[in-house]
This record gives sequence, structure tokens and C-alpha cells, in this order.
Amino acid sequence: MSSFDDVRSANSAYAQRFTDIGRPGRAARGLAVVTCMDSRISPLNMLGLEDGDAKILRNAGARVTDDVLRTLVLAVHLLGVTRVMVVAHTDCRMASVTDAEVHRSIANGAGIDTRSLDFQTLSDQRETLLADVQRIRSWPYLPVDLPVAGFVYDVRTGRLGVVVTD
Amino acid sequence: MSSFDDVRSANSAYAQRFTDIGRPGRAARGLAVVTCMDSRISPLNMLGLEDGDAKILRNAGARVTDDVLRTLVLAVHLLGVTRVMVVAHTDCRMASVTDAEVHRSIANGAGIDTRSLDFQTLSDQRETLLADVQRIRSWPYLPVDLPVAGFVYDVRTGRLGVVVTD
Repeated sequence: MSSFDDVRSANSAYAQRFTDIGRPGRAARGLAVVTCMDSRISPLNMLGLEDGDAKILRNAGARVTDDVLRTLVLAVHLLGVTRVMVVAHTDCRMASVTDAEVHRSIANGAGIDTRSLDFQTLSDQRETLLADVQRIRSWPYLPVDLPVAGFVYDVRTGRLGVVVTD
Repeated sequence: MSSFDDVRSANSAYAQRFTDIGRPGRAARGLAVVTCMDSRISPLNMLGLEDGDAKILRNAGARVTDDVLRTLVLAVHLLGVTRVMVVAHTDCRMASVTDAEVHRSIANGAGIDTRSLDFQTLSDQRETLLADVQRIRSWPYLPVDLPVAGFVYDVRTGRLGVVVTD
């Protein structure tokens, strides 16, 4: 008995139906999407994309961290990515709490002192998105003319609002 | 004219069809999946999951970086995650090149010297997966009994192979 029996069993069924159409590792539509781990975001569906079309990068808050930048350099220079979207979303927990509140909440709930961590919560989603898009644009390891834009996805309407155009 | 007109237009159509069923930000099936940005991986489909079921974390190589650890702490303590899968995959570019080769390739192709970056390429996928799973298990900010397992997804068969059980 493992904690993963349900998903392993579901994967066996998936593999039986699976047909290899020989897709390469490159992104067919040349797109990279940096978004949040939030379970209400369906990155391909919301953009009308299919498997094979895009590189999807996800973390807490759709933040442009060093890990995202590392990944984008590989995506652009080796894997056919020619444009980057950063997609934050409404009702994001990261935008409704402060790091101090998260530290307190975890200390109270689990008895763990997380105050040596930087959770990268955000107090102004729009300002953070502007700064995060700029972080990609100013990253010296990416082409200077790489189109980068910033959006907020509304989890209640399915609509993508533009915050920073390319 | 923007480089994102195609996906914005597709999103308008998506939003018109969209129905809000009031999902919360918590992961209904309590699962977090750390996997690669590779466009051939369809994390929910391959595990028989639906939107709302899981938190998905993605970067180059499914590596357990500081960003992934930060995100997992939030996912576990605030967003209902009770188990974590790390899912590497076959035919991963990160496992077929060295950092030195990536540096050379980008220098030759784009004239950019990336040698101040650590791309976290891997020479032994299995050993890296073992170490990455252990990194989560040993992270002092997560519960000591959190089930964590490591897998390799075969992009040609759709099958998930177990490398590290929980």
C-alpha cells in the first residue's frame, strides 16, 4: 500500500490508451508560460493550446525566481521558446497574506518556525507583475527583443486580463 | 499587433464557455506534482486527475530547487497538500547534456556567455531523482511523515515508472 496507488493505477489506464505521435521536446507554438501552482489554473486550456505547444513553468505565486530565469534561458536557447507570458491569478493566497502571517500560521498550525524562509508573498499584485516581467526583460542571458507580457487570470471567469503588454 | 494575439483570442473563447463551479485554492486530492516544463508532459491527464485536484510545480528538469521547496512548504501548510510526487521524464534535454555543453551551445548560437549560471543539468537521472526526493524528505520545514516518491515518465509510452517509493 502506497500513498500513490490511486494515481499509479490511473496512469496504467492512461498508458494503455496512449499513442506516441513522436512529438519532440521543442515547444511547437514557441511559448513559455510562467504561472502559479494553483489547482484552478489549466494553462493549456485557458490559452487554447495542446500538449506539445508550450513550456509550462509553475511555482507559488507565478513569481519570476532564479529557478524560473534558469529555466527560461534553457527554454529560449535550446527548446524553441520565442515568447514568454507571466500569468498571475485572482484569489491567489500569495497575494492575500504577508510572509509574517504565513510564518505565524505555520507556527500555530504545525509548530514549525519558518522565519528563515522568504516566501515571496506579494502586497501589490500589479506592481509585482510589472517587476517580475521586467526581471525577465532585463535578464542579460535572454535575447533583448524577446517578447514578454504579464497577465492576471480570473479564476472565476476564465478570463485573462493584460497587465503588461509586450 | 502583439506576439500574444493568438492566445488572447483563444482565451476569449475559453472565457465565454467557462463556468465557475466555485473551486477553492486547496488541492482536492491533496497532491503536489513536481515535474519538468517539457511540453510532452500532461500532468493531470497522465495521473487521471482533474482541474482542482493537484498543485503542479514545473521547471527545467523537475529539479528540487529552493523555489520548489519554498512552494512545497506553502502547498503543504496552507493549501491542503498531503503527498508529493517528483516526476522526471525520458528524453529530457537536461539529462543528455552537461552544463559546459549548454554554455558552449548558447555561446555559439546566441553569442551569450552563460558561464555564471548553474543550469542544474544531470548526468545520472536516477541518482539525481533519489537526491531530489531526499531533499524534500530532509527539508526541516515539512512534516517528517510527508509521503514523497520519485518517478520517471516515459514520453513514448505514457507510462510512469517508480524509482523511489514512499
